[in-house]
Amino acid sequence: MSEEQAFDIVVLGAGPAGYGAALYGASAGLKIGIVERDRVGGTCLQRGCVPAKEYLETAAVYRGIRGAAEFGITSSDPVVDFAVSQQRKQSVVDKLTGGLAGLMKSRGIVTYQGNGTYLGAGRISVSTGESIVGDKVIVAAGSRPRSIPGFDIDGKYVLTSDEVLSLTELPKTVAIVGGGVIGCEFASLMADLGSSVTIIEALPRLLPGVDQDLVDVMVRSFKKRGIAIKTGVGVTGHTPDGAVTTLTLADGSSLTVNQIVVAIGRQPNSEGIFGDGASVTVSDRGFVEVDQHYQTSEPGVYAIGDLIDTAQLAHVGFAEGVAVVKTILGEASPPVDYSRVPWCIYTHPEIAFAGFTEQQAREHGFDPIVKKDPLGGNSRARIIGEVDGFVKVVADRVTHQVLGVHIVGPWATELLSPGYLAVNWEASAEELAQFIQPHPTLSEAFGETVFSLTGRSLHVG
Amino acid sequence: MSEEQAFDIVVLGAGPAGYGAALYGASAGLKIGIVERDRVGGTCLQRGCVPAKEYLETAAVYRGIRGAAEFGITSSDPVVDFAVSQQRKQSVVDKLTGGLAGLMKSRGIVTYQGNGTYLGAGRISVSTGESIVGDKVIVAAGSRPRSIPGFDIDGKYVLTSDEVLSLTELPKTVAIVGGGVIGCEFASLMADLGSSVTIIEALPRLLPGVDQDLVDVMVRSFKKRGIAIKTGVGVTGHTPDGAVTTLTLADGSSLTVNQIVVAIGRQPNSEGIFGDGASVTVSDRGFVEVDQHYQTSEPGVYAIGDLIDTAQLAHVGFAEGVAVVKTILGEASPPVDYSRVPWCIYTHPEIAFAGFTEQQAREHGFDPIVKKDPLGGNSRARIIGEVDGFVKVVADRVTHQVLGVHIVGPWATELLSPGYLAVNWEASAEELAQFIQPHPTLSEAFGETVFSLTGRSLHVG
Repeated sequence: MSEEQAFDIVVLGAGPAGYGAALYGASAGLKIGIVERDRVGGTCLQRGCVPAKEYLETAAVYRGIRGAAEFGITSSDPVVDFAVSQQRKQSVVDKLTGGLAGLMKSRGIVTYQGNGTYLGAGRISVSTGESIVGDKVIVAAGSRPRSIPGFDIDGKYVLTSDEVLSLTELPKTVAIVGGGVIGCEFASLMADLGSSVTIIEALPRLLPGVDQDLVDVMVRSFKKRGIAIKTGVGVTGHTPDGAVTTLTLADGSSLTVNQIVVAIGRQPNSEGIFGDGASVTVSDRGFVEVDQHYQTSEPGVYAIGDLIDTAQLAHVGFAEGVAVVKTILGEASPPVDYSRVPWCIYTHPEIAFAGFTEQQAREHGFDPIVKKDPLGGNSRARIIGEVDGFVKVVADRVTHQVLGVHIVGPWATELLSPGYLAVNWEASAEELAQFIQPHPTLSEAFGETVFSLTGRSLHVG
Repeated sequence: MSEEQAFDIVVLGAGPAGYGAALYGASAGLKIGIVERDRVGGTCLQRGCVPAKEYLETAAVYRGIRGAAEFGITSSDPVVDFAVSQQRKQSVVDKLTGGLAGLMKSRGIVTYQGNGTYLGAGRISVSTGESIVGDKVIVAAGSRPRSIPGFDIDGKYVLTSDEVLSLTELPKTVAIVGGGVIGCEFASLMADLGSSVTIIEALPRLLPGVDQDLVDVMVRSFKKRGIAIKTGVGVTGHTPDGAVTTLTLADGSSLTVNQIVVAIGRQPNSEGIFGDGASVTVSDRGFVEVDQHYQTSEPGVYAIGDLIDTAQLAHVGFAEGVAVVKTILGEASPPVDYSRVPWCIYTHPEIAFAGFTEQQAREHGFDPIVKKDPLGGNSRARIIGEVDGFVKVVADRVTHQVLGVHIVGPWATELLSPGYLAVNWEASAEELAQFIQPHPTLSEAFGETVFSLTGRSLHVG
């Protein structure tokens, strides 16, 4: 056995939380080792956000051609060769993976390729036989798609996001079980690229937790594009028969489709990463338990990312990684304020928000006032031909402090940025309104909406 | 003659500056009359930003089809019917014009259709015979394209932006005289839609005043797309011959093209709007002179927008309009800080910026530090396939106050928003960096760049 290698921090898992901590720690001069069983980048880059968004962009390109005649540009009906789309997706992922690996190397981060097990006392064994030790340890082993009884993930009839993102051909008909973010994103892109899609969600509505007004705009667009939506009903099983399978629903109805996508959430990868010497507590639901500084029940051992019970978002992982490194460095490190992190949903139309809904503001003791700017009056929305959407700002009635910003429509995920800052800086409408957003932009919708909270306005009443 | 109608404020000119002042004033409860000789909306909506951006979007749709094969989507080569593009452009303009007119009416603003002349003592005569009086008067008569000796605007061989935006067919070959914002936007869209374009600029570079690094990215893209660029040379005249005309340059060379677009700037419409009773001073260059509160030499008479010698931008007009109404209401009204207004250039690639370049920061006594994030490492830029560009942040070396944000690349005009706020709020990199931008977005490029100014970083070194 080779000599044990020592680091300031050893990180288990090179997804956004883990590699974020590693990059930030290395930039602070710390010596970092990181263990990853797959390629660096984690779910987000390899099997999650990035490949999904790449396909959503493919869908956008397709929609663009379909809508081109309106602009005076004609061509034949677009044909999708999904094998090529798959290749491009992989090429984007590969380029970003290569870039990330190179960046980590250039910062002196040592990457161990294999399964890591935390043995206690800062020691980690890697399945390749190496043994390493960290003065501190950050566990960031991520998550994997949750499965559901009666639905074995066989890659033929039943897929999770992992399998969907490896398809070289889209199913003619597909049932998506789960109407959360992942389910809705897949529904949006598969419908745009020609699949006949049904979403089945056990809860009474799609995208639970998202402002209903925003969801309504998405649902209207989904319905126009032929997506069937069944809410308030669970699924009980399915019976394959040749090229199709018949899905049975809890209400007794059934649905015959080529494939079923199970998108009911993700479960933490907390099994098999802790050896006997570790004294890290894992909850019944599989999450590693941490205090407000992300320290586990074992001092000096931290856990972040999808492995803990916080928002499963790549950028939340980044933020948690930065927070832990600061804590390790003995610096002030306020925990992430999860009520104010940005959420981006890349469906068509896009949805993005940060901070409170009107309802949540009330629950937190505020007397909220709400202003809304439909995109129909926005010049650039008219120019690009996407006017279904709006910006909604929730503020305190007296101080006009911006409590929440909610956007649905074109490029919502990019337009959130000033609203996200405003919510976190606790900016007032007056502080924002003195800076007029450039014309003609979609950004004006946020600018004009906060402007109108001052009691006077330009375009927004 | 009908009885004179009286208003709290009479506005001359219903472009962005004028209608902005009117909308804001009306929302504050003031009684507003406004005089406009054309449809409401001014140059920006009728013959400027909005129609130009609509064509630029048409070009984007066309580029989208040309690049679709990379995504696995094939169709026949796109064909542009510019007459249809023209119709869509007009339909967008008409919808926005209708919306604006309706909004003004709903706020009780009285619009007079005709030429207005300010007669002094708050009195305005309208060419339709009406006579109105304002307790205060705001003059916002706008600007028109500047012409150049030897180039009569005949609408056949020689066009300005006014005529370009009414074309139903694009010229096969075109010379654009002037490499400023308008010239570069036209070059970008005409080249994308199939014209063979040459830009001729008398100054040594395109887009004077814009950070050279940004311009370099645009120029590289222009050259790749076949746009010829001649800088440092003026034009002396042209000689029509049938379907073409031969342009002569100051260096003795010549160029034969179908059409010439003169885009050398705009001149204020200050002639004919002041009668003998007015005591408003107009400069030699035709600009109405104002003090820092936009008051002209005649007390109670204000001038804003392109009529005064400030940045000729619609949103600057809005801001000036708001400032004047506040002054009239006796409220604190700091003048617009022109060194920090947002600039958006809708070329492909887009350019946007607010605040100081490195050079300007130095001139203003700062010791600047600069960080730059090329988009090649940004996930979403890779996803959409547009990686030529970057975000550049100029900050104070010691305090890390953000002094300038400069962006070139996809959706730069929308991505500027948080940077624009940061510059105006005099935010420090540390204040910004604690809020991680959502992943994967183009917004991260700004987030990561300011993050790196803290001395530590995630992806940006």
